[in-house]
Amino acid sequence: MAATPKYLTGDGAGIKDFIAKFDTFLFDCDGVLWSGDHVFDGVPETLLLLRSKGKRIVFVTNNSTKSRQDYVKKIAGMGIEASPDDVFGSSYSAAVYISRILKLPPGKNKVYVIGEAGAEQELASEGVPFIGGTDPAFRRDITPADFAGLADGSLLDPEVGAVLCGLDFHINYLKLVHGLHYLRRGARFLATNTDSTLPMHRDIFLGAGSCSVPLVNAVGEPPLSLGKPSQAMMDAVEGKFQLDRARTCMVGDRLNTDIKFGIDGKLGGTLHVLTGVNTKADWEAKDAIAVPAFYADKLSDLRECA
Amino acid sequence: MAATPKYLTGDGAGIKDFIAKFDTFLFDCDGVLWSGDHVFDGVPETLLLLRSKGKRIVFVTNNSTKSRQDYVKKIAGMGIEASPDDVFGSSYSAAVYISRILKLPPGKNKVYVIGEAGAEQELASEGVPFIGGTDPAFRRDITPADFAGLADGSLLDPEVGAVLCGLDFHINYLKLVHGLHYLRRGARFLATNTDSTLPMHRDIFLGAGSCSVPLVNAVGEPPLSLGKPSQAMMDAVEGKFQLDRARTCMVGDRLNTDIKFGIDGKLGGTLHVLTGVNTKADWEAKDAIAVPAFYADKLSDLRECA
Repeated sequence: MAATPKYLTGDGAGIKDFIAKFDTFLFDCDGVLWSGDHVFDGVPETLLLLRSKGKRIVFVTNNSTKSRQDYVKKIAGMGIEASPDDVFGSSYSAAVYISRILKLPPGKNKVYVIGEAGAEQELASEGVPFIGGTDPAFRRDITPADFAGLADGSLLDPEVGAVLCGLDFHINYLKLVHGLHYLRRGARFLATNTDSTLPMHRDIFLGAGSCSVPLVNAVGEPPLSLGKPSQAMMDAVEGKFQLDRARTCMVGDRLNTDIKFGIDGKLGGTLHVLTGVNTKADWEAKDAIAVPAFYADKLSDLRECA
Repeated sequence: MAATPKYLTGDGAGIKDFIAKFDTFLFDCDGVLWSGDHVFDGVPETLLLLRSKGKRIVFVTNNSTKSRQDYVKKIAGMGIEASPDDVFGSSYSAAVYISRILKLPPGKNKVYVIGEAGAEQELASEGVPFIGGTDPAFRRDITPADFAGLADGSLLDPEVGAVLCGLDFHINYLKLVHGLHYLRRGARFLATNTDSTLPMHRDIFLGAGSCSVPLVNAVGEPPLSLGKPSQAMMDAVEGKFQLDRARTCMVGDRLNTDIKFGIDGKLGGTLHVLTGVNTKADWEAKDAIAVPAFYADKLSDLRECA
């Protein structure tokens, strides 16, 4: 049974103790720092405050459509300073996993990508060869010749050793059946993340999971996800930043990704902010998927440290 | 525990008894009568033989992309005579269910279709108004204006009361998120069928289930399927043909759709032919999803009746 989370809003001494416990803060972004294109009041100042106290800030996002470079631009547009080294996205996580851990053998080391440019850029940054993705050759209707060529294998690249599914706003039948055929020929099944939904415009759209789930449904097995709450992502974050997990805190708005990610990763703490998807009632529920160690109404409440 | 299926191949007296038990035979098509575009030897003659004995033949298919008219053409191309009234497809099944059982209220009676022309034609044949489907307005990339218009509802037709998902070779993100937004506004969730795969070219592609499963994943509930093995389809078949279930036999190659369909429907018999997806070992297995009452190597073995 998890202990009752400590409420930080308005508790200056509590906030001071909380901040002192950690060297590194891992931040989810949407729902924590901003909503859509609207940065929450006081967030840039809060991050400056933490940095002024010598804390390291890492932006950990499941957004797979943007590379770290793209994400830095988005963060800058919110009035927050960051470098690509401060960002850990699920496409980068996947690229790091493929290049440094999976290590596909020569002759079988290409990745077939279902996803957008961000995924391609991160694979390229790690030197991983890939096909698919934003290639216009895959952004079209399937033809009878495609059915025949996929069935006899003539349309398939024999060097593909993995299928990586991220969010693809150009998803189509042709892309999906290429993925299916590579998987049926033994390719490893990976996903940047498997979020079923994507919060946008204060509404819900379809997330990266919608691009992998037709394949899961057909092959009967799930992909290895390299995004939150997968611990493959935590391991990659730890490796890159040389974290002391006990002195690291995960900050997020979602219990099933952010807070679970931090708890499963045995971090020193988790902070739930009530500016996004989940509410206090969600972790008060008997069957809560994850209960944070701390919570606050909003991130900028941390500025009230005594 | 199901009894051991009776093997009919080569047993002339057994075949004679088998045929005499039934007035109506429900036939799955692909894997039973033909494979892809290749009709199995002796199949047209076998169907003629059954008809010559006064048996009624109904073609029951989960293929949702073709209307009954389309299907009659396909059947004729295989050298088998049939009329639209002999065909019961999953799109027709869905149209009948919507018009005669669901009976959506006026002002909320449009169907948003993810699917091909066959689904549209069957809805039209039952007088059901629909949007989506093959409309070129939905066969394009999503735009920022679409995200905004879906979130504020301005792009949604307030008269949509159901979402019907069939196999759509032109599936895309825009179509899927329209479906999601109608479901989140209370539309009924229906599917022509939920087959995860589609056998073609002696290989496996993606079936209609691949077009509904991203929505299932996002909304957390499955659609009502109007195809095999759903008993909603059996009820519709019974209603249309005024079947005596005890004198009806389902013939198919798949245990999880055809044979289960017949057993759950309490038909007088089920016949498994070994020319398609499942083998004898599949129903011999301890955890077999369905065990047929009869089996034969191939349908044309029935010609050997004593």
